[in-house]
Amino acid sequence: MPDGKTSDALLVFTPSGRRGRFPVGTPILTAARSLGVDIDSVCGGRGICGRCQVVLSEGEFAKHGLTSRAGHLSPWSAVEERYRSKRGMKAGRRLSCTATLQGDAVIDVPADSQVHKQVVRKRAEVRAIEMNPATRLHYLEVEEPDMHKPQGDLERVQAALAAQWGIEGAAADLDVIRVLQAALRKGGFRITVAVHEDRAGPRIVAVWPDFRDRIYGLAIDVGSTTIAAHLCDLASGEVVASAGVMNPQIRFGEDLMSRVSYVLMNPGGDREMTAAVREAISDLAAEVAAEAGIAPGDILEAVFVGNPIMHHLLLGIDPSELGGAPFALAAGTAQSLRASELDLKLHPGARVYVLPCIAGHVGADTAAVALSETPYLSDEIALIVDVGTNAEILLGNRHRLLAASSPTGPAFEGAQISCGQRAAPGAIERVRIDRETLEPRFKVIGCDLWSNEPGFAQAVAGIGVTGICGSGIIEALAEMYLSGLIRADGIVDGTKGARTHRIAGEGRTFSYLLHDGDPAVRITQGDVRAIQLAKGALYAGARLLMDHLGIDRVERVTLAGAFGSHIDPVYAMVLGLIPDCDPAKVGSAGNAAGTGARIALLNTAARAEIEDVVRRIEKIETAVEPKFQEHFVGAMAIPHATAPYTELAKAVDLPPREVTAAAEAGEGGRSRRRRRGTPAA
Amino acid sequence: MPDGKTSDALLVFTPSGRRGRFPVGTPILTAARSLGVDIDSVCGGRGICGRCQVVLSEGEFAKHGLTSRAGHLSPWSAVEERYRSKRGMKAGRRLSCTATLQGDAVIDVPADSQVHKQVVRKRAEVRAIEMNPATRLHYLEVEEPDMHKPQGDLERVQAALAAQWGIEGAAADLDVIRVLQAALRKGGFRITVAVHEDRAGPRIVAVWPDFRDRIYGLAIDVGSTTIAAHLCDLASGEVVASAGVMNPQIRFGEDLMSRVSYVLMNPGGDREMTAAVREAISDLAAEVAAEAGIAPGDILEAVFVGNPIMHHLLLGIDPSELGGAPFALAAGTAQSLRASELDLKLHPGARVYVLPCIAGHVGADTAAVALSETPYLSDEIALIVDVGTNAEILLGNRHRLLAASSPTGPAFEGAQISCGQRAAPGAIERVRIDRETLEPRFKVIGCDLWSNEPGFAQAVAGIGVTGICGSGIIEALAEMYLSGLIRADGIVDGTKGARTHRIAGEGRTFSYLLHDGDPAVRITQGDVRAIQLAKGALYAGARLLMDHLGIDRVERVTLAGAFGSHIDPVYAMVLGLIPDCDPAKVGSAGNAAGTGARIALLNTAARAEIEDVVRRIEKIETAVEPKFQEHFVGAMAIPHATAPYTELAKAVDLPPREVTAAAEAGEGGRSRRRRRGTPAA
Repeated sequence: MPDGKTSDALLVFTPSGRRGRFPVGTPILTAARSLGVDIDSVCGGRGICGRCQVVLSEGEFAKHGLTSRAGHLSPWSAVEERYRSKRGMKAGRRLSCTATLQGDAVIDVPADSQVHKQVVRKRAEVRAIEMNPATRLHYLEVEEPDMHKPQGDLERVQAALAAQWGIEGAAADLDVIRVLQAALRKGGFRITVAVHEDRAGPRIVAVWPDFRDRIYGLAIDVGSTTIAAHLCDLASGEVVASAGVMNPQIRFGEDLMSRVSYVLMNPGGDREMTAAVREAISDLAAEVAAEAGIAPGDILEAVFVGNPIMHHLLLGIDPSELGGAPFALAAGTAQSLRASELDLKLHPGARVYVLPCIAGHVGADTAAVALSETPYLSDEIALIVDVGTNAEILLGNRHRLLAASSPTGPAFEGAQISCGQRAAPGAIERVRIDRETLEPRFKVIGCDLWSNEPGFAQAVAGIGVTGICGSGIIEALAEMYLSGLIRADGIVDGTKGARTHRIAGEGRTFSYLLHDGDPAVRITQGDVRAIQLAKGALYAGARLLMDHLGIDRVERVTLAGAFGSHIDPVYAMVLGLIPDCDPAKVGSAGNAAGTGARIALLNTAARAEIEDVVRRIEKIETAVEPKFQEHFVGAMAIPHATAPYTELAKAVDLPPREVTAAAEAGEGGRSRRRRRGTPAA
Repeated sequence: MPDGKTSDALLVFTPSGRRGRFPVGTPILTAARSLGVDIDSVCGGRGICGRCQVVLSEGEFAKHGLTSRAGHLSPWSAVEERYRSKRGMKAGRRLSCTATLQGDAVIDVPADSQVHKQVVRKRAEVRAIEMNPATRLHYLEVEEPDMHKPQGDLERVQAALAAQWGIEGAAADLDVIRVLQAALRKGGFRITVAVHEDRAGPRIVAVWPDFRDRIYGLAIDVGSTTIAAHLCDLASGEVVASAGVMNPQIRFGEDLMSRVSYVLMNPGGDREMTAAVREAISDLAAEVAAEAGIAPGDILEAVFVGNPIMHHLLLGIDPSELGGAPFALAAGTAQSLRASELDLKLHPGARVYVLPCIAGHVGADTAAVALSETPYLSDEIALIVDVGTNAEILLGNRHRLLAASSPTGPAFEGAQISCGQRAAPGAIERVRIDRETLEPRFKVIGCDLWSNEPGFAQAVAGIGVTGICGSGIIEALAEMYLSGLIRADGIVDGTKGARTHRIAGEGRTFSYLLHDGDPAVRITQGDVRAIQLAKGALYAGARLLMDHLGIDRVERVTLAGAFGSHIDPVYAMVLGLIPDCDPAKVGSAGNAAGTGARIALLNTAARAEIEDVVRRIEKIETAVEPKFQEHFVGAMAIPHATAPYTELAKAVDLPPREVTAAAEAGEGGRSRRRRRGTPAA
């Protein structure tokens, strides 16, 4: 910009700080573009979309060397008036495509006017999502056909896209070409196109007559039990509707392995399950669309995550190979598809992105957890566990990241537990046991009162106390251990029957009566054993990865998934589900897989990022590691036969340690060996 | 290569002339690859495919400085024996993957062992087709899954493709991923993949267990009347079967405009016609496949050409916009699709390429003609006309190329002609008239004798003489003109009735009796007028392009298409269908559109070439050019009111010129003006 000319004015944009001199009369949006300032626009500066709003900052700005006044922008225009009366505008806002520079000015671009705005996430320790969707809308004014310049309609649309939006060489779907002429003529040669951009380049995937400013995307986590969907506005990133449905594949088998068995027993069974899950997804899309007041045809993208078997069945791949060693995935790489290839009833041009799987037991859901929690950007060594029938485990930091899966079985979900049930109203989810009286109190889902508080009986009258869910069993066992009702080796201590009527003999073992009702809720010796097996497997998997990384302790632990977000991390540590860590650094990430799916939906760069991370992740197959069994045995004790849990001990009053035979033979032996390697030797 | 080592030998490849020293024991194929010598292979050097055959040239080669002996290759091996006994091998041939270097040798790579072999074309003036198909087969030996290296099957296939064939980053169709595991396990982790490569990169589109060495492609010209298909071997380029069927859209309308009218009158009519043509193409594919003894599923590619309306209907685009000004194409650019998008019953992974259209009246068929005839590579200025209901015209050379379409109407196809008929047995196709007696002789399709030769009557007894086809009417009119039976203005000269009974009055006009049978075949005044209108339009189109190019004469004329290949170019010139040119430089190209389709099928580089050419072609819309009418009027005369036809006059005895009023007013005036600009002035 030539400096010092009287017909030029100095323009400074905040928060970017970009500045330049422009001739008086230059539209603010034009100036912003020439400086590379990020301002959104769908209509391309025609005062229709209202995405490009800015605010003039009034005052003397010594650091910028200018005085910015309201009069330094052109007066409020008819275009702005029309937009405000139709759609509304906050006070002080101007349309930057219409307002022109009249003198020196400082112009603020509010977050909601930026293309690459950030979607704020709830937890402080994770990064915000930067908006960078693969599919975007562009309004076009297309040249009309002219016999003197014989050119196809598509070519003129492509020329408009290049001239008005700088998008060169966009191909078009056949479905777009089919409806293009009608859309152009209906819209008077003004159309809005949706352009999807990926490694294959830009591609027009949808077209509408005239102006249109909203399209939507779905982030879907296909779980074995539940399919959860978030419908997002692809411009703002906002979740406009969420819903979940039971995975209809449950009728073919409750858990993953029984579904694989169904395929092995019933040739073609995979196709039935594929059809079922796709239909459920289409129905779910219709449901969230209805909730948001849009049509399923307004959905232009969908991102999927899921465990390897759900991943294969969604894609229509027979999952039989995943049912046995060597657990070979058909394809672990990320897939970019058309929604129509999966028979999904979205917009005909809708695109699907499926996150990569990590290994035969570690799926795209875990890749999504990694994308959400970004251990690969962390300096700290983080352990992330997503607990389900299998526990998927990530361990590492920005230098190395390892992944494994541990066969925990369904105990954490309340299965194999005598009074176990799914987390539903009436289930006990919180437990405390008085260290002196050994009397329990508890909370059930659907009631905010503790069982010993006044009014509890009335409050739960309608719900009942029906059983105990996964988080409840963890707390019950941890409290029993802390109260001395369970020994470190997991034996329910029958001698405590002398102090409380709640301990009762059952054959040669004992149980603890948590709730004397109908049904009675007891914790049996079998229940403790089931949880010991599950938590031993979980710990052993984590410990195995720690061995591979050559570390003895982790700096941060994150529990992901529905179970992970309901259990109290301290109780999880008391029981020894996870290795010792400062309790302040143990937290839950909620539905991290769903969040990862949402990130991949809203930010196309995140797709390349997670694909690269997954390629670099070191995959450990627990089944072929002899050390896994060894760790498993040591991890059966509560919290552990040998691991010291010193950080936990600072926060919780742990019972005194008993020295067991296993400790002598196992970790103890190793720590002696290690001692020989110390500098003092 | 280190020179002079005793354990090295000198190896020279012919015809490439590439040479190098290699350790004794090096397989010839390995040496060839390291030198970049083009030798084909599907099995990657495993002695299965037999594509890599070479011949040792024996003797002293002074220019190469070596002596090449049979003993300088390793002895005939068991692998070669196995291959020969199974598939046969010409004497002297060796498998270069198996035979190893034992001493200095000259090795010839026969044409059929080269990947980029050339497919020889029949006409001398056009270039050969270099083989460079978009889809190729690659045999792979894939690593088996291993729990210690958790990796998906696709990832191991991709790794094998990179390691064994140097193809990096190949994606895979979902259909391939779905069947990949079964194919790998059925083939014992040996598979053959078909890799399609285009601008979007390499992509695995098909997979088969174990070894496979043939795939096929279809080149299809979708004409308004006939759909013609050539089935080609994608490795050799050979046409293995050809067939044609009537375009079933004929039941919706005989010609293009009546089909557009059908759509305008019957909403959804375009969808009926799309379904009809696609079904016919699938049937045609099945027919040629059966003829070649293969399955339609062995067809991996299809290339389509056709006029704009056929192009749109094939793609499922409503062609209504092409029915009226400004004749806007929905999309003129080339289309790369999956066959499944067009509902074609080929291999599920088959790809379709549709050549670009040039303008609303000048289709992908004309682009294919350009690709076959390559005027854009020529130094000479060539005129290429493809005559149908519309004549598509290309004019230019490697500096500039112009295209237009002229509305000739259906007269050249025998329609609008009183005794006209399609070119079928019984139709008169050749005509001669004795200049003295004015007696005709003729030939009919299906009989090699002239009508005045002995045995003609018996020979045509079964066929009959049923009418006159397009090429016959051209010759009849030209001979009538040369015999003085028609004047330059097209009037059938009634005064000649004095010399022959064959001239008869019909109202105020006269006709000429060509064949006195049942039916009688007459050339009426109306017939002459119909041909005059058609040829006037054709000439005017060509002349208009000559004006745009600023030239007065063309150096070469090529007649393309079925009509163009049947008419005698000299007679075409006598009638003035085409501008004056040395008759030795006027020829026919046969089915150039079909040839162009075949080139695009066999050579992927040709696709980029024709797309680039089509972008650069200057499109002239005859309907908006005032000069077109002027040229049309002048071109109604035979051969032309004013154009001199001096080259033609050297070869043919033309009747003396009559000076007409039009000549005085039109071209005459212009030639006077031009004279003023000569150096003598």
